Amino acid sequence: MIVIKVGGSVGIDYDAVCKDLAALITRGERAILVHGGSAETNTLSEKLGKPPRMVTSLSGYESRYTDRETLEIFEMVYCGKVNKGVVERLQKLGVNAVGLSGIDGRIWEGKRKAAITIVEDGKKKVLRDDFTGRVEKVNVQLLNLLIANGFVPILTPPAVSYEGEAINVDGDRAAAILASSLGAKKLVILSNVPGLLRDLHDESSLIQEIRFSQIENFLEFAKGRMKKKILGAIEAIREGVEEVILADARRERPLMDALAGRGTRIY
Amino acid sequence: MIVIKVGGSVGIDYDAVCKDLAALITRGERAILVHGGSAETNTLSEKLGKPPRMVTSLSGYESRYTDRETLEIFEMVYCGKVNKGVVERLQKLGVNAVGLSGIDGRIWEGKRKAAITIVEDGKKKVLRDDFTGRVEKVNVQLLNLLIANGFVPILTPPAVSYEGEAINVDGDRAAAILASSLGAKKLVILSNVPGLLRDLHDESSLIQEIRFSQIENFLEFAKGRMKKKILGAIEAIREGVEEVILADARRERPLMDALAGRGTRIY
Repeated sequence: MIVIKVGGSVGIDYDAVCKDLAALITRGERAILVHGGSAETNTLSEKLGKPPRMVTSLSGYESRYTDRETLEIFEMVYCGKVNKGVVERLQKLGVNAVGLSGIDGRIWEGKRKAAITIVEDGKKKVLRDDFTGRVEKVNVQLLNLLIANGFVPILTPPAVSYEGEAINVDGDRAAAILASSLGAKKLVILSNVPGLLRDLHDESSLIQEIRFSQIENFLEFAKGRMKKKILGAIEAIREGVEEVILADARRERPLMDALAGRGTRIY
Repeated sequence: MIVIKVGGSVGIDYDAVCKDLAALITRGERAILVHGGSAETNTLSEKLGKPPRMVTSLSGYESRYTDRETLEIFEMVYCGKVNKGVVERLQKLGVNAVGLSGIDGRIWEGKRKAAITIVEDGKKKVLRDDFTGRVEKVNVQLLNLLIANGFVPILTPPAVSYEGEAINVDGDRAAAILASSLGAKKLVILSNVPGLLRDLHDESSLIQEIRFSQIENFLEFAKGRMKKKILGAIEAIREGVEEVILADARRERPLMDALAGRGTRIY
């Protein structure tokens, strides 16, 4: 079993990812795709006069402030446009895909964090009415049922709180706990960068391999959105996933290249 | 098994529908909910500067002209906001709902009708690049699998063409073929009218019962959106559904009242 996460940033080629995934499935590999939708959510938010608000937590992680209105815009893009777009691409390629969010069948469960403390202009601030959280529990029954019956699950945030509310969660970390809960051997995290770079501004500074025992030495290179990907990779491997590959989704064969070792391999 | 269709028109109380559905499920009844989203799609279309275009076919049926851009707006509302909103409401009520579209698992399959002939200002016109069609085949395997394992499917258009494209289909007729394919005994069609009215402008002119053998005598009363509901009812009963109830979703207990006989009962 392989869990593949593909981000929602500008430049990512979803056609290419779906083509590769279809080839993988045809070969008999079992896989689940987790996707994002951040760039399109920003675009829609702007168009609807509700510009995105990215906030930075005390520990330095960036996330989207998600009030109820933002949550609905988020769901429209992630669960509507992007999820059904991926399912449609795969159905055209003969893959019997089933698109789901983490609320459906309570696949991704966790605690809602209604109030978050952020740092803005160097000052601490508390934001309330936030619909965000972190996946703490994966209910694998539905996914295993689908896979055992020949369906390919396409999964997207939001997740569901213990009280049943939709909550925005980080897709990379959600994919990580999904991979370990399903006993997946590999987790591939595709985005619009080649992997972990020593120098953010130099794509040729790619770090190709990291032994998990050495990971502490590489944390300093993870900036911005890469921080949560590395955190996800650590969580996945700690919980039993053998290999995490961070790779580039802006290529013609993004998934096949990643599985062939192009990117940053953590093992 | 009961199939419930709830429309997406203004005034429909989704909280009340979900509350009733949860009560029904708790009682041990097996049910599938099919929902719409037309009013919200119109609102979003307007906001995005792509106002809805309703067209009338040669045979007098009204539908939404659905080019690719409209299809994506449609998916955002139906599969994103409305579908996940229903799933969230039900999860809060302790029902393990799973939201799906007709593309997922190819549940609703049919032929795409790329070119449609419409009548506009008394003239015939052919519109191309339309992503609409009609459900001809229901792949019940996924739904039966979910139901047998305790999940409650929440289903929404679009459907999928034989070539794998997403197609906009009429929700009432899709619910009708779903009900007969699943061997459901009852189909409840909830909307923002009390049922079939003798006089469109007088809600007290409700027709309470129609024997299927007499249905021809009542067709003249079906106007506008009611035409497809009656067509769906006819198709459902012809294919083995025992009873179709057209009822009002603007009530406190919309589903329970419908099942208790309030509305138009066709049998």
